[in-house]
Amino acid sequence: MSEQLAPGSVIGILGGGQLGRMLSVAAARIGYRTHVYEPSANPPAADVAHKVTTAPYEDEVALRAFAASVDVITYEFENVPTSALDLLESLRPIRPNRRALATSQDRLLEKDFLTSIGLTTAPYAAVSDAKSLGAAMARIGTPAILKTTRLGYDGKGQARILSAADAPAALAAMKGTPAVLEGFVTFSREVSVIAARSLSGEVAAYDPGENVHRDGILHTTTVPARLSPAERTDAVLLAARILNALDYVGVMGVELFVTDRGLVVNEIAPRVHNSGHWTQNGCAVDQFEQHIRAVAGWPLGDGARHANVEMENLIGDDVLRVSELARQKNTAIHLYGKAEARPGRKMGHVNRILT
Amino acid sequence: MSEQLAPGSVIGILGGGQLGRMLSVAAARIGYRTHVYEPSANPPAADVAHKVTTAPYEDEVALRAFAASVDVITYEFENVPTSALDLLESLRPIRPNRRALATSQDRLLEKDFLTSIGLTTAPYAAVSDAKSLGAAMARIGTPAILKTTRLGYDGKGQARILSAADAPAALAAMKGTPAVLEGFVTFSREVSVIAARSLSGEVAAYDPGENVHRDGILHTTTVPARLSPAERTDAVLLAARILNALDYVGVMGVELFVTDRGLVVNEIAPRVHNSGHWTQNGCAVDQFEQHIRAVAGWPLGDGARHANVEMENLIGDDVLRVSELARQKNTAIHLYGKAEARPGRKMGHVNRILT
Repeated sequence: MSEQLAPGSVIGILGGGQLGRMLSVAAARIGYRTHVYEPSANPPAADVAHKVTTAPYEDEVALRAFAASVDVITYEFENVPTSALDLLESLRPIRPNRRALATSQDRLLEKDFLTSIGLTTAPYAAVSDAKSLGAAMARIGTPAILKTTRLGYDGKGQARILSAADAPAALAAMKGTPAVLEGFVTFSREVSVIAARSLSGEVAAYDPGENVHRDGILHTTTVPARLSPAERTDAVLLAARILNALDYVGVMGVELFVTDRGLVVNEIAPRVHNSGHWTQNGCAVDQFEQHIRAVAGWPLGDGARHANVEMENLIGDDVLRVSELARQKNTAIHLYGKAEARPGRKMGHVNRILT
Repeated sequence: MSEQLAPGSVIGILGGGQLGRMLSVAAARIGYRTHVYEPSANPPAADVAHKVTTAPYEDEVALRAFAASVDVITYEFENVPTSALDLLESLRPIRPNRRALATSQDRLLEKDFLTSIGLTTAPYAAVSDAKSLGAAMARIGTPAILKTTRLGYDGKGQARILSAADAPAALAAMKGTPAVLEGFVTFSREVSVIAARSLSGEVAAYDPGENVHRDGILHTTTVPARLSPAERTDAVLLAARILNALDYVGVMGVELFVTDRGLVVNEIAPRVHNSGHWTQNGCAVDQFEQHIRAVAGWPLGDGARHANVEMENLIGDDVLRVSELARQKNTAIHLYGKAEARPGRKMGHVNRILT
């Protein structure tokens, strides 16, 4: 416990979106202040952070001042430029560590890492040009999906290849950046494990949630997921293996496909995760506090679930339903304070306590 | 619904203590910003409020600027000076209204109001000097308790009178301010009803909680309270009668004594209340959000309780137990970010979900 941050310490958060907003609230709840670093003006986290720096990740002066004002640095956004991280890491501890970030920033590195520790992923192959794409398709077959190795999320930076005829357009969509071809996995459902590892190495995991996507964006997560007891155990052990292998500190989201041949890892996110928002209304310690606890050197909360919950994202105009949702029983509304409801934009979410 | 505040609107909060802090978080959760007005520097709410004004309640320029920057004004602290409220009320709506505030600011007015709507209070009489104290004691008897009519809380501004010999010292302790003598009520337990009334007049109440005090300060609140079904119904109806009579908008805490002859109103607080903190971990919509909903013109949340909860205050050095509490199951820790743990100071609270 010697490394536990003193009350009133400041936790620096890279990224000021809704995850940074909810991390700030959780930090305040257990007695810490947050300083959010975000390039764009008036980010969602600014409403609740103690301090906000608005500066690009290339601004060395701003980065140094940010580091000087905080006790530890974490992030809500995994695509922070390497140069910024190099500088920050020389000044303050970054949790989760750089290796976890680097691994999850690159789909190819991530799959190589996962297979190296004995886990199953979709069949995959690196693609850099037409020749390597041809070789990858020959091995993996179609349908398959071509993804940039870096910087894609919520369905962006991806192209489906249903037959060989789709290959040239898919390759063109990658715009010359390194890519990875992934085979399709036949799965009955997708689940997420939200797991955490503390500074002293303890691991805790929440009950897996079952995810439904719509238009490539998470639509609902429901707990408990429909899993056999063996699958439930496998899911949690598998997440723990990932966290331990990375010497991870903080919360990670692990997306899994449930298949006839066991669990297949879809992807990992080295941060709090949309599919863990249900914990806000189903657990005494939610994923945001769990992350702050880990980063601040606290013991982890036990993650026990005291209610069944369905989380539904409010995307774009969904937020117009708030007046109606506000009248529903056992319904907790969480809005992110974003002014403009653009299509595909995550505006908030709803947690329904299922009784 | 026409009066519902638009997303991104600003709610002004008078007072920056822990209640203002938790109100700010609740406001952010449903898409609003808060501007906290507080005379003392670095108040607990400053960590999570969008904006903070540090100025005395006598600073007319600061009050005007505050009002100009907000859409509606509420308070976490009922002893705001009348002059400040007069000015603010001319500029922006204040919810709950001035009558509720004036009534609860004065113990004598409060008891007169409660009896005027048919509710039972402890026997009481106004005391201004030795003569009126003598008359009051002759009517009410001893033991009794002498309290200043204004500005007392958590046991301050009170003196017990066990026999006639205590009268002079008790009167001296009032320091010449108007006071009220209250007879003792023989009660089996104290319960609180946390109730809310919306702008459109709907009323919702949480399950009553059972309070235990220590050294005159709330120690624990446990839900459900040990009440008969009839008592439970009475408690809620009685709270609704108070809210309706005051044309109240917001959350109110109503403290009740459970006696052989029915429920006796101890006192009312025109704000979120320490005995309602359990709702943070027992309900989809907690008392803080319920208050913000009312003040912002939303429909009320239904207040249904999905878990049994025990709330325990962390007073002074209790906060040193946090490391130990952090390891307990189903335990939610709430700290207020106060630097110094003085004796009697509310540093945080713990909600235990009872399973």
